Amino acid sequence: MKKFTSPKLAKKVILRDPVHGTISITDQVVFDILQSREFQRLRRIKQLGPIAFVFPGATHTRFEHNLGVYELTRRICDTFEEKYAGEDENLWNPDNRLLVEVAGLLHDLGHGPYSHTFEHLFGTNHELMGQKIILDPRTEVNQALLKVDPEFPKAVASVIAKTYPDPKVVKMISSQADADRMDYLQRDAYYTGVSYGSFDMSRILQVIRPYKDGICFTENGMHAVEDYIVSRYQMYQQVYFHKVGRSTEVILHHLLERAKKDYEEGIIMATPSLAAFLEGKWDLTDYLDLNDGVMETNFTMWTHAKDPILADLASRYLFRKPLTSVKVVGDKKKLVTKLKSLIEEAGFDPAYYTAINSMFDQPYDAYKPTGKNANSQIEIMEDDGTLIELSKMSPLVEALDGTLQGDERFYFPKTMLGSENDPQIFEPIYRQFQEHVHNGYLVE
Amino acid sequence: MKKFTSPKLAKKVILRDPVHGTISITDQVVFDILQSREFQRLRRIKQLGPIAFVFPGATHTRFEHNLGVYELTRRICDTFEEKYAGEDENLWNPDNRLLVEVAGLLHDLGHGPYSHTFEHLFGTNHELMGQKIILDPRTEVNQALLKVDPEFPKAVASVIAKTYPDPKVVKMISSQADADRMDYLQRDAYYTGVSYGSFDMSRILQVIRPYKDGICFTENGMHAVEDYIVSRYQMYQQVYFHKVGRSTEVILHHLLERAKKDYEEGIIMATPSLAAFLEGKWDLTDYLDLNDGVMETNFTMWTHAKDPILADLASRYLFRKPLTSVKVVGDKKKLVTKLKSLIEEAGFDPAYYTAINSMFDQPYDAYKPTGKNANSQIEIMEDDGTLIELSKMSPLVEALDGTLQGDERFYFPKTMLGSENDPQIFEPIYRQFQEHVHNGYLVE
Amino acid sequence: MKKFTSPKLAKKVILRDPVHGTISITDQVVFDILQSREFQRLRRIKQLGPIAFVFPGATHTRFEHNLGVYELTRRICDTFEEKYAGEDENLWNPDNRLLVEVAGLLHDLGHGPYSHTFEHLFGTNHELMGQKIILDPRTEVNQALLKVDPEFPKAVASVIAKTYPDPKVVKMISSQADADRMDYLQRDAYYTGVSYGSFDMSRILQVIRPYKDGICFTENGMHAVEDYIVSRYQMYQQVYFHKVGRSTEVILHHLLERAKKDYEEGIIMATPSLAAFLEGKWDLTDYLDLNDGVMETNFTMWTHAKDPILADLASRYLFRKPLTSVKVVGDKKKLVTKLKSLIEEAGFDPAYYTAINSMFDQPYDAYKPTGKNANSQIEIMEDDGTLIELSKMSPLVEALDGTLQGDERFYFPKTMLGSENDPQIFEPIYRQFQEHVHNGYLVE
Amino acid sequence: MKKFTSPKLAKKVILRDPVHGTISITDQVVFDILQSREFQRLRRIKQLGPIAFVFPGATHTRFEHNLGVYELTRRICDTFEEKYAGEDENLWNPDNRLLVEVAGLLHDLGHGPYSHTFEHLFGTNHELMGQKIILDPRTEVNQALLKVDPEFPKAVASVIAKTYPDPKVVKMISSQADADRMDYLQRDAYYTGVSYGSFDMSRILQVIRPYKDGICFTENGMHAVEDYIVSRYQMYQQVYFHKVGRSTEVILHHLLERAKKDYEEGIIMATPSLAAFLEGKWDLTDYLDLNDGVMETNFTMWTHAKDPILADLASRYLFRKPLTSVKVVGDKKKLVTKLKSLIEEAGFDPAYYTAINSMFDQPYDAYKPTGKNANSQIEIMEDDGTLIELSKMSPLVEALDGTLQGDERFYFPKTMLGSENDPQIFEPIYRQFQEHVHNGYLVE
Repeated sequence: MKKFTSPKLAKKVILRDPVHGTISITDQVVFDILQSREFQRLRRIKQLGPIAFVFPGATHTRFEHNLGVYELTRRICDTFEEKYAGEDENLWNPDNRLLVEVAGLLHDLGHGPYSHTFEHLFGTNHELMGQKIILDPRTEVNQALLKVDPEFPKAVASVIAKTYPDPKVVKMISSQADADRMDYLQRDAYYTGVSYGSFDMSRILQVIRPYKDGICFTENGMHAVEDYIVSRYQMYQQVYFHKVGRSTEVILHHLLERAKKDYEEGIIMATPSLAAFLEGKWDLTDYLDLNDGVMETNFTMWTHAKDPILADLASRYLFRKPLTSVKVVGDKKKLVTKLKSLIEEAGFDPAYYTAINSMFDQPYDAYKPTGKNANSQIEIMEDDGTLIELSKMSPLVEALDGTLQGDERFYFPKTMLGSENDPQIFEPIYRQFQEHVHNGYLVE
Repeated sequence: MKKFTSPKLAKKVILRDPVHGTISITDQVVFDILQSREFQRLRRIKQLGPIAFVFPGATHTRFEHNLGVYELTRRICDTFEEKYAGEDENLWNPDNRLLVEVAGLLHDLGHGPYSHTFEHLFGTNHELMGQKIILDPRTEVNQALLKVDPEFPKAVASVIAKTYPDPKVVKMISSQADADRMDYLQRDAYYTGVSYGSFDMSRILQVIRPYKDGICFTENGMHAVEDYIVSRYQMYQQVYFHKVGRSTEVILHHLLERAKKDYEEGIIMATPSLAAFLEGKWDLTDYLDLNDGVMETNFTMWTHAKDPILADLASRYLFRKPLTSVKVVGDKKKLVTKLKSLIEEAGFDPAYYTAINSMFDQPYDAYKPTGKNANSQIEIMEDDGTLIELSKMSPLVEALDGTLQGDERFYFPKTMLGSENDPQIFEPIYRQFQEHVHNGYLVE
Repeated sequence: MKKFTSPKLAKKVILRDPVHGTISITDQVVFDILQSREFQRLRRIKQLGPIAFVFPGATHTRFEHNLGVYELTRRICDTFEEKYAGEDENLWNPDNRLLVEVAGLLHDLGHGPYSHTFEHLFGTNHELMGQKIILDPRTEVNQALLKVDPEFPKAVASVIAKTYPDPKVVKMISSQADADRMDYLQRDAYYTGVSYGSFDMSRILQVIRPYKDGICFTENGMHAVEDYIVSRYQMYQQVYFHKVGRSTEVILHHLLERAKKDYEEGIIMATPSLAAFLEGKWDLTDYLDLNDGVMETNFTMWTHAKDPILADLASRYLFRKPLTSVKVVGDKKKLVTKLKSLIEEAGFDPAYYTAINSMFDQPYDAYKPTGKNANSQIEIMEDDGTLIELSKMSPLVEALDGTLQGDERFYFPKTMLGSENDPQIFEPIYRQFQEHVHNGYLVE
Repeated sequence: MKKFTSPKLAKKVILRDPVHGTISITDQVVFDILQSREFQRLRRIKQLGPIAFVFPGATHTRFEHNLGVYELTRRICDTFEEKYAGEDENLWNPDNRLLVEVAGLLHDLGHGPYSHTFEHLFGTNHELMGQKIILDPRTEVNQALLKVDPEFPKAVASVIAKTYPDPKVVKMISSQADADRMDYLQRDAYYTGVSYGSFDMSRILQVIRPYKDGICFTENGMHAVEDYIVSRYQMYQQVYFHKVGRSTEVILHHLLERAKKDYEEGIIMATPSLAAFLEGKWDLTDYLDLNDGVMETNFTMWTHAKDPILADLASRYLFRKPLTSVKVVGDKKKLVTKLKSLIEEAGFDPAYYTAINSMFDQPYDAYKPTGKNANSQIEIMEDDGTLIELSKMSPLVEALDGTLQGDERFYFPKTMLGSENDPQIFEPIYRQFQEHVHNGYLVE
């Protein structure tokens, strides 16, 4: 594999980062990427999107996260070079450093605003967009990468696409224990203010090691890795799956659907880059011009729209008036049709004021020969070099292995539950509705 | 003075806050304000504005800060009620609690995007706007306040305006040691990742106390208060006065000036709320529709403008291409004219690519009979009740007392300093320019 | 049940505590206990005993831990009074506060130096000693308690002994989620510097609640409690069961055994209080005069003893020369006899230089109708008041429920494993020995 | 100067440290020193001595502090080698590393229990004792050092004694900004739980740099260094000069004086090592056998002594019954004689129950051509290499420069001030006494 090198900066650049303390930049190419407009735009895309509506502190952006992943790959490379580069070149080749650091820095470059919802509605894909930005000669990122080597943009793209031939390089960016997850768990915990995401990063940096086919952890680090898996599980349960955060996503989804319809009918306007998407004729520049602020600027304009549903949904999104929800388990889903009728009777269009939302995640998966996490099990190396899969050593990881954690929820307007001082709760529609809600579950 | 009370929520609402841990809400009115669109919009206005370009983590908003000030007033009231309410009603009247908490929550309600720069160019004033929002019957905030009492909006507004008759209530929100400063110092330190802003808040909460004419601190708390003043000084030096942050403000200022001119000449467009300001015919709704995202949406559109200066300034702002700067002291300001000519010769319009920027602050002021900080000296109470002004007890505060800390800088394009690999640095224009820059100062 | 009250201090006393921030004392009786010689002696007994040899920072003592438990009970009482005292007296009776706080403060009063090892060898019992100190009229603690009420010492003792009739009071001090464990997990984590023991105490304080028969947690706090159980499991694995820490205990045990023998044979001396134990004629004063420093003073004297085994064991303990160890699983224990012979051949008395040491713990136990943890399962209360046992809601707790975590180890002199530069490792004794050690396990 | 090198350990040893995270050991000699009995004994000598009586968490020992200083020198060497070793050997010679790290590790090796008080009474000196232990061929430390080179012990000793010829090496261990102070300020802050000692160590490590004649800091680090000086000032004011901590030292002093007298009169016993000092015939072994535990073991025995003054002083020390105090300023010292008479009249021997205690410190000293801090001013290097003395750049440091901070106090039994419920406060002796105490000061 080719060796890529970058000229060094005359003076190291150090950025303050509340999560990792500092982020150190010594390569010209890293500095140039940072200065590029495609990278700078990430400052305007929140890392957790609508979750800031639930955890007010979570205003951090994809810009800091990408920097954080870069910094962690840099520190992992330091560990590998110090301990595993001298003795045996097969274990760690220092020539990989630049490639892995830049791939870390750019791994999420393709994200747009509210990726999940946006992609679903407009058919974009942040991974493909990232590849495109890296490879398109019109972007400043591509120009910066080309200064290193004509092959460099492709190499970086292939690491992010997991097609680069060296599994060690790929797994530092994409695996069940990669720099990406390690950064976002810590960063999201710091900014939300929950304590669950904290695990012992300095310990992880001591026990992570390369081996012939990938990355593993030394035996004395088992508990640090176990703690990381547990933290991941807890962050999903407490933050990423938060029922109110998901309500905001539900509203966002309905809001954009309604806007699409209204725009097609010519009854609303939009700023240029979003208009291009609503018209279905967008190009890369439009995509790069989008961000959270652009979306919210349009939503703000739409709060004055003549379509009352659009105006209401825009207000609900911007001013945090979430839908409420109940858990749906077993065959209780059959009740949803009846509840939707009651909601309609109460004056809400169920297409825009109700939703079924499922969120599930596998906290850890020991082995899946195919699929997204194929072969990415976490391994612990014993003194004699034997590799043991993590769930074989940890009862906690064993408990989570292969399980799906999460829930399915039915969202609807809070009014349906009424409140103590609210006379309408005695009306039959509301009473009937409320009979189906108990302890936060949908019941018969 | 009137007693204001609010119905209690059926269930306490607790928000996560990374700075104070949690924020507790028990009053209906506080909850209603939180839900109002005027308050929710603060989510879209960054607390530190352009400083996020220097400290990438500083993405926090005025929303969290206002909540934080509310929480600190709440905790100070807890202290006062526990210790000073029972024995002598003159010391602390628990009836003040709701008023002081709501004033804390709303003290920065009137802020718009990039207040400093925006106000200068468009003649707005965030303090007056705050009063307006509180008192205007069309706002949701006003509606929420009215549910408490017809007099409540005015009372809240007068506390924020420092005209409310009880000095204890006013000083909790506005003084040299108020809940506002205590929150922002800690919050800005947390999000920038610097350690300077940290002082011992839990200790301050133990030693703060009311007396007849205001708020002071018990003798055993002198060092905690001293530390707070030192933290304040350090945050100004390290964060608020950061030369690159100010560069971004300089660019913003020039960008908006240029946009005003271009808009008047009809060669650019703007989204409705900003257009209203560029046209000089805005109303409260327009102001409330503005936020950082709206501004940046317009800037993004303007990167495609035909006016190359506007397009360049917009790009420089959005993609962080700051001007560089030198300190100007003594009579060296006279050199600026010459430097501007050189800059013009090098191809930059000095009106948009240079600036003199002064930032100075008084870290502490013992006594000033008139002016903004009139009478707001910090006092320490001895065992026998004697009050001693802080700088009389602390050599550090004495050193800072009355001094102006800060500097004056001349901003210009970085190209003027060239770089090692840059052939043009040997051209006479650049050489002449560079002769006037030494150790970061402007020299003859 | 009787109501106990104490006069209040003229001025609240606040102690600094790095774990909880501050510890607040307002009752005269708490202050008096703190001043008593029986409580002050806890300053001289390390909380983690020999574990400081492994984690150098772990120098904290039972004094701080007892204060910390007091502070947590105080904060729990605050929560209970604020939320559950007004509405229904059966849920929380504020009259319990003093009793529960004092029981928290005194729950570990009976500990002596190195309790585990010491008790085993000298037949003492820290729980009984605690009862004795509380009830004996010659102690300052008893005098302090009597000032509250003649019945108070007995009531306090019965809470600690778990015989007090109100289960809510008892469970705050002794259960699977009590103030004792919550303090020591956090404190031990802080002083060892590991991150595993950290859980979200402020959240726990929000969600803990009384119910008719005990203490439970509200439904929205499930994850905080889950995290606490996981932290507990991790602290056991990483700190309390640390193999080197246990080695120090093994040496201590052998050292005291040998000292007993030597003292009986009249070949060593001891300071008065320890001498009383070595002679088997001790009284309460002797017990109270013991502490870590007294033990180590004697060990220091014994480093000069004529008995080379005693002198060596004392040096090994004081100067941290641990034995090394391997895990013993399945039927491999049968090999120990052979290994002991090899060790003896190598010149070490196996009685003093080898040991089998087992440490196991149940991280959580859902239900055990009898035994030490009888009925102390952790329960979560749903919205309608239904109680659900924790492991039914958490897959992590379910995984740990009822399991025994820990290991059994065989300890022996490190020399048996030789080292690279050590010629004797080629001698047959050592080679034979080393054949039975692989990947840290005893093998055939 | 000679180059010293040590064989490397087969495997890096990593210790947990709550202050610096981890402490890394790669050299055999560092490991050997750690294992030596002279170094291990530091585990039994508290870093802050009697201050733990005021801040219960402050149980940390000189063992951890010495390790911490070692770790900081190691990190400073990393910075120097990365940035200043390649370009110009005169700036930093990597051959100095081992010497400076070992000197850091051993700089406080000579400390005994309660150094300050003990040295005053028994004529020992911890600096000379440290030299002795390093150079004496009977110590394990000396043996470990000799394995590096026959000259190594002397070289290490000369660095600690500040006579080593290279000022860069000496100043890393002893100057106004050395690894020693940087560790103890942070460590003491962590264990006491105060926030004042925290400064930005990671920033300091970025801006510290060598120059021809010593160590300085780059211009962009001025505020980090300023913050460090302020932290130092605050720790002295809040922790090291704490009036109750000093009371404990006063009692300790009187207790040892009385014990000396009683021992000479043959009316008390002592354990061997302390007995050697009381008899005035001690050798190095006796000194090494002393520690806090030995002292307190003797004090515990003396609580049963027949001399009531000795027994009382021992109890006061062990069970924290401090004397109380007032500040003495100006000519008020003349009143002390009168107060002592009153105290004697009240039944206390003033020789053992009163004291004048002065504690003053210079937080920073810009330049003193002679004396202890000669030439150790802190310097900031500008871009062009000019050195500027710190107080010229920082108004805070200028304010502290050359000043003496601290106070003089008169200590006496608390009973003299009586208490509200105490009838004797109306007796004339007490009334007369109390007339001279106001707001914590001695008054006429």
